[in-house]
Amino acid sequence: MQLPLHIDPASRISLRQQLADEMRRMIVDGLLAPGSEVPSTRTLSLQLSVARNTVVRAYEKLIGEGYLEARSAAATFVCRDLPDRCTEVAHVATVVDRSPDRALRAPVDLSDMQLGLFSRPAQRLSHDFRIGRPDASLFPKAAWRRLVIECLGASQHALTDYGDPAGLWPLRVAIAGHLRHASGIRTRPEEVIVVAGSQEGLNLVGRLLNISDTTVAIEDPCYQGAAFAMKSLGARMCPVPVDDEGFDVSALCDRRAMLAYVTPSHQFPLGSTMSVGRRDQLLEWANRTDAYILEDDYDSDFRYRSSPLLALKALDRHDRVIYLGTFSKSIGPGLRLGYVVVPAHLAETARSLKALMNNGHPWLEQAVVSEFIGSGAFHNHLVRIRKQYLLRRDRLMHELEGLLGPLCFEGVDGGMHLTCHLPGDLPPAHDLQQQLKRVGVGIYSLTEAPVTRHARFAGDDHVALFGYPCLPESDICEAIGRLGRILAGRSRSRTATQVHDSRGARV
Amino acid sequence: MQLPLHIDPASRISLRQQLADEMRRMIVDGLLAPGSEVPSTRTLSLQLSVARNTVVRAYEKLIGEGYLEARSAAATFVCRDLPDRCTEVAHVATVVDRSPDRALRAPVDLSDMQLGLFSRPAQRLSHDFRIGRPDASLFPKAAWRRLVIECLGASQHALTDYGDPAGLWPLRVAIAGHLRHASGIRTRPEEVIVVAGSQEGLNLVGRLLNISDTTVAIEDPCYQGAAFAMKSLGARMCPVPVDDEGFDVSALCDRRAMLAYVTPSHQFPLGSTMSVGRRDQLLEWANRTDAYILEDDYDSDFRYRSSPLLALKALDRHDRVIYLGTFSKSIGPGLRLGYVVVPAHLAETARSLKALMNNGHPWLEQAVVSEFIGSGAFHNHLVRIRKQYLLRRDRLMHELEGLLGPLCFEGVDGGMHLTCHLPGDLPPAHDLQQQLKRVGVGIYSLTEAPVTRHARFAGDDHVALFGYPCLPESDICEAIGRLGRILAGRSRSRTATQVHDSRGARV
Repeated sequence: MQLPLHIDPASRISLRQQLADEMRRMIVDGLLAPGSEVPSTRTLSLQLSVARNTVVRAYEKLIGEGYLEARSAAATFVCRDLPDRCTEVAHVATVVDRSPDRALRAPVDLSDMQLGLFSRPAQRLSHDFRIGRPDASLFPKAAWRRLVIECLGASQHALTDYGDPAGLWPLRVAIAGHLRHASGIRTRPEEVIVVAGSQEGLNLVGRLLNISDTTVAIEDPCYQGAAFAMKSLGARMCPVPVDDEGFDVSALCDRRAMLAYVTPSHQFPLGSTMSVGRRDQLLEWANRTDAYILEDDYDSDFRYRSSPLLALKALDRHDRVIYLGTFSKSIGPGLRLGYVVVPAHLAETARSLKALMNNGHPWLEQAVVSEFIGSGAFHNHLVRIRKQYLLRRDRLMHELEGLLGPLCFEGVDGGMHLTCHLPGDLPPAHDLQQQLKRVGVGIYSLTEAPVTRHARFAGDDHVALFGYPCLPESDICEAIGRLGRILAGRSRSRTATQVHDSRGARV
Repeated sequence: MQLPLHIDPASRISLRQQLADEMRRMIVDGLLAPGSEVPSTRTLSLQLSVARNTVVRAYEKLIGEGYLEARSAAATFVCRDLPDRCTEVAHVATVVDRSPDRALRAPVDLSDMQLGLFSRPAQRLSHDFRIGRPDASLFPKAAWRRLVIECLGASQHALTDYGDPAGLWPLRVAIAGHLRHASGIRTRPEEVIVVAGSQEGLNLVGRLLNISDTTVAIEDPCYQGAAFAMKSLGARMCPVPVDDEGFDVSALCDRRAMLAYVTPSHQFPLGSTMSVGRRDQLLEWANRTDAYILEDDYDSDFRYRSSPLLALKALDRHDRVIYLGTFSKSIGPGLRLGYVVVPAHLAETARSLKALMNNGHPWLEQAVVSEFIGSGAFHNHLVRIRKQYLLRRDRLMHELEGLLGPLCFEGVDGGMHLTCHLPGDLPPAHDLQQQLKRVGVGIYSLTEAPVTRHARFAGDDHVALFGYPCLPESDICEAIGRLGRILAGRSRSRTATQVHDSRGARV
């Protein structure tokens, strides 16, 4: 086998490093399949005309990193269980630090914004309650393929010309229609700006309101992607505590801010729904202090009770609310498709800004999604996956209570994850997270999730987050079974410790 | 016919306005085809339960704007020749101005950056020498369709998960390979960041280098998208004149800047290629003053002579150059796909920043383009369209010289447009542009192109820009023929005027 490796002898990067980097990449991207044999060091050294020892040391490095395994002196294989990319991110950072060019003028400093952005698990977990991911197996593959082919057939100039920077018109019409039915928001398509996921929406709003050197009120705890976006645009953060009614507006009083960022349908990460009273208070605060509200409705397509509260945007009578939606949860993040709904007086500036930022979203995704919505297939897809997600949520709650007794849950009426307040006699969520990881189960504590926190609150170390859409019911049972075995082992060893202690006391 | 119109009686926008907006949109987006009859005012007033006079006035408005035409008292039709969307943009702006919410805190002010962003022609021209658009008829439709279907079939989790924010790895490898062959740039794929077209690349670089409150040296005249992006990020512009050797580095001397933005292969808009001496000087300046260079190689895939100069990025020995490339010219802007190549020490920060900005590009476009390059189809496509574009360039130059005699051209060795310095006895380019527009021909003067200018230079009003890729040779002949007839008419009327003048003098 000839590997298509690209090694540059003139580079400042050592040959060993280059070789390890290239092979790691081929493994990560599946060009070298897990379990497959790689060429012998001798073969590769001949192919690349590099010293055999260089290849040996590159292989050793990859063995140490968990990408390769040596089964005998002569045969090396790609590991079946691969570490994830974040290992390699750390690795690239090391290379950078060694670079002699650090004396160059420093770019923007994002060093305190690294962790959450790359918060992928260090290894893939077989039973992962990941937050905010739809189930790949429920993706509407056949319908999608058909729509893609149809749209391509009718594309004409769409691929070779610039579209409207604010988005494809039929998609903006379809989104306005969807919002009218789903969230009671009445908007004109002109006020809908198509963006590359809600992350871009956050940037668009931050730049639109010129938040540099202004104050932005955020939830505490807050979705990290939002806090980091605002911070990177130069805003000062004003954290406002969240309770079971959501964002505690009274903590704001008459404090002035350019913007308040909130997740009223399903607070991220805690899951609470903002009460009607708080909604009114927040709108009143914005109007009184001349502020805007950014309503991030990231997973509002998943409501499991019949009457959702009206969105802040639907209640807004003073053009104070900017609404952020996404198809990352309802269809998939691989589309990078979301939307911002702005008040009419901001629509034209938002469109110009989107043109300045990247001149609009790729055409095909927009065309397909507008057909997907327009044909009713989106509605049917939502009904179908909602039903599955609800079954999984119920199974998860049932299994957890079966194991631990009655529990305090939050965020169960909607969304794609729930919050479980673990009983106080259990280990902290972070410890459980580490122990479960070793047996292939992923749960999330507030310290290891894409969450920005300022103040602590009582019991916050016992908050565990479970995203349930990606695990079939049988996997949920198995995962909670593993949790049970860990807790049983712990209580056995605790009993043993107590015996030992009492024995010690007897001495 | 029941039109699916959405009218909101509770809106602050008048019913007439809403109705006109909705119908205009249906026309612009092809839901109402050019030439088709629209419902009578009576039918529509019954359908919508609005006063007939409201419908009459909405129709009158659209007739005035050129979207509808009344052929008789009872029958109204969609115009066959539609005005383009920019009319409607102006219209939205008017609505905004009337809004009572102007008292709200003002967002970012982009009012001086409007013109160029929406510089679409007011009407579609039959013979348009548009700048920087590939020919839709040469798009590789069949290959594209096949690759899209292949990629979708192998997608697995790609649509329902987040990808690497810096881009799909195989695409980054493919881009690094393409650059090695096409521009002599040796880069590791880790240093390639996939972005949504070069416009997003400009924003990424501006934010990466934290250019707010710093000086950015730009070409004068400069590509407007670049100047506006830097300006909107808070940088001060330092315009540097361009001559036939490109960016005049000597004008910079020891002036300090964070960044110099240049288009060395094919200066936008004038077309000159930066000389080798200037390239060395610029690199030396950057190293001496601790600045970065942003090399925008927007149309470098089109070289019509055998030996292109090495890119600044390929000559850079001090990690000073950031390189910007795009697939908008070589494949099509509807993909919104470009790339930034950063020095190794900026790679990890650039990746974090892209994650902050929008968490990466949609998957499908990336997968298809990486296959397109990897399979050799991109290379073949470039060979095929280069051949056509070269024929069109030659035809254009031949026809222009046939009409006007020997001419001074710039920017003919590469790219997708050329600059023609019109003879001094011709009207200024801007006047010709206006006259030609009336007969369906689009040429571009420096005042009506996406160009930012600071100083004037001698003869700049006689600079005409012609983008030739979209017009077949026969259309080029026809267009230049129309130019000929305008000039002939002008010289006839000038002769007549002279006769009149001389008669006047005789009196």
